[in-house]
Parts: sequence; C-alpha cells; structure tokens
Amino acid sequence: MPAKADVIKVVMVGSGNVAMQLAMLLNISGNKIIQVISRNKKTGRQLAKLCDCNFDSELKNVNTEADMCIIAVNDDSIAEVVSNMPLMKAAVVHTSGTIPMEVLKKKFKNCGVMYPLQSLTAHSGIFSELIFCVEASGKKVMDSITGLLQNINCRYVKLNSAKREKLHLAAVIVNNFPNHLYSLAYDFLKQNKISFQILQPLIENTALRIDSRNPKSLQTGPAVRGDLKTIKRHLQLLKNNTDIADVYKTMTKSIQKSRK
Amino acid sequence: MPAKADVIKVVMVGSGNVAMQLAMLLNISGNKIIQVISRNKKTGRQLAKLCDCNFDSELKNVNTEADMCIIAVNDDSIAEVVSNMPLMKAAVVHTSGTIPMEVLKKKFKNCGVMYPLQSLTAHSGIFSELIFCVEASGKKVMDSITGLLQNINCRYVKLNSAKREKLHLAAVIVNNFPNHLYSLAYDFLKQNKISFQILQPLIENTALRIDSRNPKSLQTGPAVRGDLKTIKRHLQLLKNNTDIADVYKTMTKSIQKSRK
Repeated sequence: MPAKADVIKVVMVGSGNVAMQLAMLLNISGNKIIQVISRNKKTGRQLAKLCDCNFDSELKNVNTEADMCIIAVNDDSIAEVVSNMPLMKAAVVHTSGTIPMEVLKKKFKNCGVMYPLQSLTAHSGIFSELIFCVEASGKKVMDSITGLLQNINCRYVKLNSAKREKLHLAAVIVNNFPNHLYSLAYDFLKQNKISFQILQPLIENTALRIDSRNPKSLQTGPAVRGDLKTIKRHLQLLKNNTDIADVYKTMTKSIQKSRK
Repeated sequence: MPAKADVIKVVMVGSGNVAMQLAMLLNISGNKIIQVISRNKKTGRQLAKLCDCNFDSELKNVNTEADMCIIAVNDDSIAEVVSNMPLMKAAVVHTSGTIPMEVLKKKFKNCGVMYPLQSLTAHSGIFSELIFCVEASGKKVMDSITGLLQNINCRYVKLNSAKREKLHLAAVIVNNFPNHLYSLAYDFLKQNKISFQILQPLIENTALRIDSRNPKSLQTGPAVRGDLKTIKRHLQLLKNNTDIADVYKTMTKSIQKSRK
C-alpha cells in the first residue's frame, strides 16, 4: 500500500453527487482515478471523461491494479455492489454515514469507510472545510485512507460504525432540517412578496456563531422568552400554511420544553 | 432634524441585548447617546457608563434635547413605555419586529421603526452584516433613521408594519428553529460521547451556500430521498429521546410533503 505522499490509484464506483465531488477533489490533488464504474452509463461516462479514465458499467471488470476502490453509491445499493464485485487485493472503502463497515468486511480483507460529513449536491459549492469520518479494517488501510485525505487537504476523525451512524443522524438534524426550514421561510416570504435575500445575513450569523459551547445559550425568540402573544400571532399568520404551522408548533413546543 | 453626516443625539430606552448592541454601534460611529433610561437600574447604569452619559430610571425625565429616542425594550413593554413617556419633538423609534408603528403614532407625531434582523444576545458576536427593517411616519424621520444607520455602516430595507411582522416570523423559522436543532444535536452527541465540533463545518456550509435560489434545490438526506430504512433506523436511535424524535418526525414529514 502506498505511503502518504504517493499517488493513490483509485477506482470510483458510482457517478452521483458524492462520487463526482470526491473524484474532482482527487483529480485536483494529483491522485489518479484509473476507472469509473457505474450502472448509470450517461453520468458514469461523463465522470470518466472528466477524470480522463476508462469507464465500465460492469463491476466484474474492475481494474485490479487499483490501490483503492471507493464505493460511492446510495446506501441501499452498497450490499448489491459488494456482492457483484470480485475479490480484491485493493482496499475497498465506502462513503456512507449509516452502513456499517461490517458489510464490506464479510467479503474484503482490506476495507474501510470514509464518510464525508457534508451535504454534497451537484450544484452547491462547499464553502467550508470538508471533514471525513474514517474507519478501517487495519492500520495499512487506515494509513491509505488518511494519506489520501491528506493529499486532498481534508481533515478526518476516526469513528467506529456505531458512532458514525449517530453522527449521521446529528448531521441530518443540523443540515437537512435547517435547510428545510430555509425552504419553508422562502415559500412563506414568496407568498407575501418579501425578498428572501434579506434573511441571508441572519442565516449566516446563526451558523457562524456556533462554536463548542451548547447552542442553547444562544437561543432567542418568542418560544424561549415565553412570549405567548407573539406565538399566537405567528400561528394566525400561518393559518393558510398548515404545514409550516405544524413545524412551528413542534419546534416551539420543543424549545419551551428545553427551557425547563 | 440633522442631515446624514451629522451627529445624532440619542436617548436609549432599555438596557437589554438590543439596547446594548445598538448603543455600542452608535458609540463607535461617533453618534452620541446622551441618556440611558431603564427600569433595570443595574444594567441601565452599566450601559450609561459604557456610553459615558447620564442614567435615569424614570421616563418622565427623558432628555428633551435628543434628536431621537430609541425604545429598545421587550415587545410586551413597548405600550407601557409609550404611555409613560412625555410628548416629544424628537423622533420616537422602536426596534421590534412584531409591534406595529401605529402604537407609537397614536402619541408621537414623529415616529418610526428600526428592527435589527439579527439574533442579538449578550454573549454572541455578529459575524455577518446587520440589516435593519425601517419604517417612518414621514420623510424627515426616515432620513434621520437611515442617516443613523449609514453612520453605523448598516444596510436597511424599507418595510411596512404588516410585512415586517411576516419577516419576523420568517426570522424565527431561520434562526430560532435551526439554533434549537443545533442544540438538540449537541445534546444527542453529548449523550453518545461524540464531539459536537465535528459538525461545525457542516453547519457553516449549510448556511453559507444559501443564496437567492429556493433552498429546496439544496435539500439532501433520507427524507427527500425517500430512504425509509434510514428514517426508521434514526427513530430507533432516538427511542430514548422522545423530544428529539418528535421533532425528527415532524420535520421528516414536512420534507416528504414538500417533495410532492
């Protein structure tokens, strides 16, 4: 297995958002994607072209000269990919937050996980540090993963599968849910002909002020103040938006509970 | 009323978070707080000392040489403050997101609103632009408010009371609720002995990528993917955290609805 500074030859399985973003990072860093394998021939070929490497749609044709094979597919497809892959000398690594490493270990002696703790979409940039949660079957694979991440200037934390799964749940809570709240606010302001962009500095500040302290100390607003009059008025304003009202009620109740 | 570049003499009514942050900004900018009036003698005296001005606990003693009197008290106390204040030639301005300007207009000929669209707490810095929503009884007061805001390098948008109230509701949705979600994630990770700080880049990125597009296009995660297996597993992981589970269910349901 190559040392940290060496070029790592990677086979990328998948051609979705995570595969795409990871392949771009690897390409920039001087590592080498030597093959893209994907069921989706269109996006697979696109990614292979971007990486200047071969494309294949069959897992049985995986390039055995690879140092690492990164499975960056939907969680639901990982087991199937594993069962269709031939045995490999290379380290086989998946990128899922929720699937245990055990799924790989059953088949591959050298295996690991590198889960990027970001919401990777095709059209959104990454504005802040990319951290990976890593796990490996042994020291050699761990060195290989961390070497690769150092090559692409990314930080990592070592976490076992049980903790990674919990961190993934927390990531849903701090990314998916706030983003949906932004979306609800967007809809509400659009209905009322108010520019959503006015909220941008507030959205940024809410996130940027977060540090290692309990965010509870930063809680403001009617719920934590116990300002029932404003809460009642807000629910009146939402009388034609029952979905937003449901979210408002649940969040307000939860904030009020946490005051006790 | 003074022109934009002139020093504006301000009486600050209140000594809480908003009064404090606003007074600090005004002080730095070369405007002049000439008096602090507050029911809370302790924090009122502290603020007056910081502003190098007189303190009074009685509204009837308001300094009539002021150009502007800023009422920066809790929403619930504004009506009482108004009724206890003498009639004034100066512009009387409040800083509330929810209270209509009408409450001031009933008594004061020159009045207005400057609502800072930020979550201002005593211990949190402001990392991004401070925007004010402004409204005024007439052009002279509007010029005075916008002049003052230009002096402290803050942007403003003109919004009437009805729209301001709706924007305040949206601000609750994009600030109070996400901050509470950070707090729930903090609690959950603490229980499981995982560092909350690992989430910081994700939290930042989620906010910083927001622009004028509908945030819906940036939605990722199990709910929008329809990944019922992961959702079920997350609820298992939350079986001892019924409050977080309630929030998880409501948010997930709302995300799923918005896909349709």
